[in-house]
Amino acid sequence: MSKTVTVEVGLGDRAYDILIGSGLIARAGETISARLPGTRVAIVTDENVAASHLEALKSGLESGGVAVAATIALPAGEKTKGFAFLQEVVDAVLGARLERRDAVVALGGGVIGDLAGFAAGIVRRGMDFVQIPTSLLAQVDSSVGGKTGINSARGKNLIGVFHQPKLVLADSGVLDTLPIREFRAGYAELAKYGLIDRPDFFAWLEKNWREVFEGGDARIEAIAEACRAKADVVARDEFETGDRALLNLGHTFGHALEAATAYDGARLVHGEGVAIGMVLAHRFSARLNLASPDDAVRVEAHLKAVGLPTRIADIPGEMPGADKLLDYITQDKKVSRGALTFILTRGIGQSFIAKDVPSSEVLAFLRDSLG
Amino acid sequence: MSKTVTVEVGLGDRAYDILIGSGLIARAGETISARLPGTRVAIVTDENVAASHLEALKSGLESGGVAVAATIALPAGEKTKGFAFLQEVVDAVLGARLERRDAVVALGGGVIGDLAGFAAGIVRRGMDFVQIPTSLLAQVDSSVGGKTGINSARGKNLIGVFHQPKLVLADSGVLDTLPIREFRAGYAELAKYGLIDRPDFFAWLEKNWREVFEGGDARIEAIAEACRAKADVVARDEFETGDRALLNLGHTFGHALEAATAYDGARLVHGEGVAIGMVLAHRFSARLNLASPDDAVRVEAHLKAVGLPTRIADIPGEMPGADKLLDYITQDKKVSRGALTFILTRGIGQSFIAKDVPSSEVLAFLRDSLG
Repeated sequence: MSKTVTVEVGLGDRAYDILIGSGLIARAGETISARLPGTRVAIVTDENVAASHLEALKSGLESGGVAVAATIALPAGEKTKGFAFLQEVVDAVLGARLERRDAVVALGGGVIGDLAGFAAGIVRRGMDFVQIPTSLLAQVDSSVGGKTGINSARGKNLIGVFHQPKLVLADSGVLDTLPIREFRAGYAELAKYGLIDRPDFFAWLEKNWREVFEGGDARIEAIAEACRAKADVVARDEFETGDRALLNLGHTFGHALEAATAYDGARLVHGEGVAIGMVLAHRFSARLNLASPDDAVRVEAHLKAVGLPTRIADIPGEMPGADKLLDYITQDKKVSRGALTFILTRGIGQSFIAKDVPSSEVLAFLRDSLG
Repeated sequence: MSKTVTVEVGLGDRAYDILIGSGLIARAGETISARLPGTRVAIVTDENVAASHLEALKSGLESGGVAVAATIALPAGEKTKGFAFLQEVVDAVLGARLERRDAVVALGGGVIGDLAGFAAGIVRRGMDFVQIPTSLLAQVDSSVGGKTGINSARGKNLIGVFHQPKLVLADSGVLDTLPIREFRAGYAELAKYGLIDRPDFFAWLEKNWREVFEGGDARIEAIAEACRAKADVVARDEFETGDRALLNLGHTFGHALEAATAYDGARLVHGEGVAIGMVLAHRFSARLNLASPDDAVRVEAHLKAVGLPTRIADIPGEMPGADKLLDYITQDKKVSRGALTFILTRGIGQSFIAKDVPSSEVLAFLRDSLG
């Protein structure tokens, strides 16, 4: 049996543990009942994940003494993250007569985690919540930090709550069955933590990324380090009034690219947008004389080596012009009172929050990047 | 000009003030801009309240330098507290491009406050919220303490969040135009605070209730004392894991009576249910030899004097039998892991949380009360 690593998210009376290891789904029942005695659960998942992991989770829960009061399997995909399915989940949880100290268990990727966490956050004004992320992206990003929510016609993730889980079980073994493109997309977020403030982690990934892709202890250690990095930022700024914005490195450009492809996953998935966005953030920082151009080259080389797109031109199909991309950026929710905020960097692992970045500079940079 | 009283709700970094006085709506702009500089607002109200107070509020806001970015007037009534209108409010607030530090302003009674507060709690994972309660019930109850929410087909207030307002403006002058039945219903909740833990306040109300009904400083002082009482309980137990349940004095019986009348306000409104429920709680406590029967007599005498119903028989129309009422009680959301929890009392101002009350005792008591 491989090792299990525990990362604590230090949030006072909302503190919780993230367990990272292989086989955690099969042992979910004993783990949950040891930490949340007497809890009953409703499992929220999607149809694809259900086909691979639902029976294993159910038997893991029940053999560990955790009663499954309801199972809700929703259509897979971003479109599920809306009011209609939120209402369906809430209704099913209430219908199972779960109480505040019972738990909603999210089994799936970011869509399921965000939706189920939001439902857990609003049923009876907040019930217990357990995350079992089944994608690399969810294991290192969305399942840590308590952000939950759904999309609005006016933008992604505009509706939700901060609702911390009681426990996160990141089963690194389930990632073996992920499509390679999805694993790579998650890897972009993993590498992000090195770029934000852990230069040694980025250097470690440059050397060891093949082992991370292969599985085993290197993968567990990489996920754990990413969770530690995120937990540190979240503990400093739970409600995103300051430092937490660092987690958006690569995301302002990335979101604009996602919007420009109308969120068509065949062309660009979120992690790919972040990969290109991180390279753009490093190149933009170099252009503003904040960082050496060599750092941007190094970031691009690594992301390219693992097979990620790194240039806008890598996105298949027509892309809009620089003006339109800037429009998408200013519409992004991270705009505060009209000022343009970017995460820029002084080098690998030295990112910072830059406020009042002139939009003319962004526009000129985008024109060159598209040229 | 009559006095303005400030009650602070001490919740650390979520602390806020309740201002109580006459004419606060007309001065809303200067008050809000002094406390939340630069904020823009979306006003949520209902059509009835809008007819009386919306223009006054708008001009009060704008003359004080607060821009009104959107106004949402919803149908009046409990049916508005559901997912469809929640979505409408959220969409309108997002459509007005309000940011986290802009505010949703609730102008209305409990339905509007609960719905608008929930919307404020979930737009961008929580934006600022200002309550301007226009009913006595909302001024002394729902606008203090941060409970927000909507109803489910499975029960009232089962979906929502804790989201504290930044400011509450309780304009005692607007109560002059309330229908007397609605004022009385709010008065039941006001008197409740005396019965929970403020015997002197209850005695003061017994002497001064006519002045409270008439308006002026006695009304302001009564509302302020009720808000102080509620703020004390909320500060002790923001998330309702303990003492806050005391605020449910009279509510377990009251909710069952409301459910038994299918929430038909022509037969019974919430405050009336609470009035009968408080008398039942005192009589039930006497029956269990916890309190003197004289206290129940005194409570009933006072509530009757102000014109409130105090007996199940006072409710017009057919009522179900004791068994059915017990069913409604066990379905009430305040049931924890199947145990029956009641707020009982050892006398006026000496209420306490009683867990594991035998349902057989409740049933026998209800049979006698209906007989």
